[in-house]
Amino acid sequence: MSDLLGYRCSLCGQEYGPSEVEYICPKHGDLGNLDVVLDYASIQRAASPESISASGDFSIWRYLPLLPVADPGFLGTPLRAVGWTPLYRAERLAALLGLKRLFVKDDGRNPTASFKDRASAIVVARARETGARVIAAASTGNAGAALAGLAAAAGMPAVIFAPQNAPPAKVAQLLMFGAQVLLVNGNYDQAFDLCLQASREFGWYCRNTGYNPFTREGKKTAAFEISEQLSVSSEQWRAPDRVFVSVGDGNIISGMHKGFKDLFALGWIEKMPRLMGVQAEGSAACANAWAAGGEAITPVAAQTIADSISVDLPRDGVRAVRAVRETGGAYIKVGDDDILAAMRELANGLAVFAEPAGAAAYAGLAKAAREGIIGPDETIVVLNTGNGLKDVKAAMQAAGEAVKIEPTMLALQRELSR
Amino acid sequence: MSDLLGYRCSLCGQEYGPSEVEYICPKHGDLGNLDVVLDYASIQRAASPESISASGDFSIWRYLPLLPVADPGFLGTPLRAVGWTPLYRAERLAALLGLKRLFVKDDGRNPTASFKDRASAIVVARARETGARVIAAASTGNAGAALAGLAAAAGMPAVIFAPQNAPPAKVAQLLMFGAQVLLVNGNYDQAFDLCLQASREFGWYCRNTGYNPFTREGKKTAAFEISEQLSVSSEQWRAPDRVFVSVGDGNIISGMHKGFKDLFALGWIEKMPRLMGVQAEGSAACANAWAAGGEAITPVAAQTIADSISVDLPRDGVRAVRAVRETGGAYIKVGDDDILAAMRELANGLAVFAEPAGAAAYAGLAKAAREGIIGPDETIVVLNTGNGLKDVKAAMQAAGEAVKIEPTMLALQRELSR
Repeated sequence: MSDLLGYRCSLCGQEYGPSEVEYICPKHGDLGNLDVVLDYASIQRAASPESISASGDFSIWRYLPLLPVADPGFLGTPLRAVGWTPLYRAERLAALLGLKRLFVKDDGRNPTASFKDRASAIVVARARETGARVIAAASTGNAGAALAGLAAAAGMPAVIFAPQNAPPAKVAQLLMFGAQVLLVNGNYDQAFDLCLQASREFGWYCRNTGYNPFTREGKKTAAFEISEQLSVSSEQWRAPDRVFVSVGDGNIISGMHKGFKDLFALGWIEKMPRLMGVQAEGSAACANAWAAGGEAITPVAAQTIADSISVDLPRDGVRAVRAVRETGGAYIKVGDDDILAAMRELANGLAVFAEPAGAAAYAGLAKAAREGIIGPDETIVVLNTGNGLKDVKAAMQAAGEAVKIEPTMLALQRELSR
Repeated sequence: MSDLLGYRCSLCGQEYGPSEVEYICPKHGDLGNLDVVLDYASIQRAASPESISASGDFSIWRYLPLLPVADPGFLGTPLRAVGWTPLYRAERLAALLGLKRLFVKDDGRNPTASFKDRASAIVVARARETGARVIAAASTGNAGAALAGLAAAAGMPAVIFAPQNAPPAKVAQLLMFGAQVLLVNGNYDQAFDLCLQASREFGWYCRNTGYNPFTREGKKTAAFEISEQLSVSSEQWRAPDRVFVSVGDGNIISGMHKGFKDLFALGWIEKMPRLMGVQAEGSAACANAWAAGGEAITPVAAQTIADSISVDLPRDGVRAVRAVRETGGAYIKVGDDDILAAMRELANGLAVFAEPAGAAAYAGLAKAAREGIIGPDETIVVLNTGNGLKDVKAAMQAAGEAVKIEPTMLALQRELSR
């Protein structure tokens, strides 16, 4: 089936066989995030950069030999159309920042318009393997939409627990995909816990981010794509020097780290990139832990325009701190104004319309460039994690006002000569 | 450069050389839409289904030999990432409708999330060829966003004329891409006319839909993709039996018609598909003309939830009527309730979240299937022209209400047992 050897607890290192545990290391309550352990020797026998580059499958599923799930079927559906998003070359933005090689990976072009499709696709595949008939998740936003959408693609019922204050527009998207949406009279943590309880009670497969080890395995595919898209030949892929990633619950940067580690262990890339975590000033639990030099995560009362990375308690915080520390990267904090400016720059300078959380990564790069943290010759990748259409209100805040004129050439000429 | 022989007026048949006219046949005011005439013999010498299928370019630009523009450059930018959208196989929806082979082409996955990127990409390429330094368009919605975005990708200034009542969210998207947005104190027709005047006066290249013959040449690429994606071998592409297309100003169905005609003339497909035009009951100028058996278009006072196909006077109406009549198709009118139901069915049954105008095509198919117009063995393609995130308000109307519960298992169990 797949090359899943088992799991290793990210906190205590305890190893488990593939069927010994399902979600977390039982020694640490709900906090013992598990690393998925793959059989690299077996992968090396079955696949190579060359065999994958020759694949006609332009989605995350081209990396099936490196994934801990078997082929899920559903060919020709959105479940099979996740990933292989464009890696744009941002020459004008590079010039603006004094850089030479800058790329933007646009994950807003996934089926439900966010990076989270990568995780949900793998979770749906895993759910089917475990024989589960329902998938559940707690989410207010992109993760819920991704799960609802890709479960719909596979014809599986999905149950989404959302806090009662979830934006009606995002709830509408969940309902459109046919998910059962339960608005919980409480906050995100209460929705999260109720989802765990219900999943245990009813045998639902639980997608909760961080808690479920397979979300990270989906997210790692972005690291694969970047390395393949930067390759100079089909035999050797190439990691960039740095990757800028916005950080909320920490699972995306943790997934990127896992992806590059997989490739490095296989010898398919020659070095690890420095991972640069970008957090909003008002939601900086991981950045704070990193700055303090430890791994202990102190929850914050999160407040930022970038709702997708507005997180009190990061559910994959420890590994998010490690991803940066182990690769020699850094955490950078950006203000909401920096994020709004980054939205404008990305849209105007590269035609990438990003939601605030997605633009935050670019805001971090801009700050790092201004502060001289990065060298001009480095190859830099910035990850946009969500489409700007996900949060039109923020775009309206960033965009400013349009000019009003009378429908005459005179009025137009007057305006243009101002 | 390209295989552009010239233009032919769609009303009087008058032919023009490549540099004799720019936009329309001067004999009919602003109404003489021009067909682009290509040198098929030259195309046949330069390209074949096989050579194109072997292309490593997964965008509209794989069809460069069939396009009336030269390679525009800007590799690695969103301008080069338009098209090659997924053609999903909709098995559950097919079963629901009593069909066997149903496909949905999801053009909501284009860079600015609508079909209009196809037209704007070709127009930007053309604008550069003509030496224009600014591109202008009148638009309230997807066409404007597509032009603003792809002009930004090419670093070209764009000027968008929008009627003053344009939705602020759509105006924000235009501003984000750095376009100069002029809110005209008048309706769409006044914005359209002011854009024409200004373009003449200032030498701007004018993208106005229908008026500019190159928008249709961009839109035809969807017909190419469908035929290639349905091919059984790399030597012979295959047209479906029917394509359902929502119709507003008529330029999309006109473009699809041109695309299939190009392929048929080249011998790359064996038959023409029947083109099925779907209009909202409240915006049915083309459907009315078709039903009356003529080509004369009588303007309506358009009123429908599907804003992208809400059109008083279709700017490419005559060719839109012909597209259906010449291929033995039909026009179908659907109500706003049908459109809202289609949005739910597409999202729930295939995970395609469409804006109302995009879902209208599926609503037309559902109606045609119910009425027995189509045979169960036909191969059907439905075109979704825009992402549902473009109009979240409509989605909220379609989605209904989520259930509210207390954060307890007891409350959950009570809800689930209802």
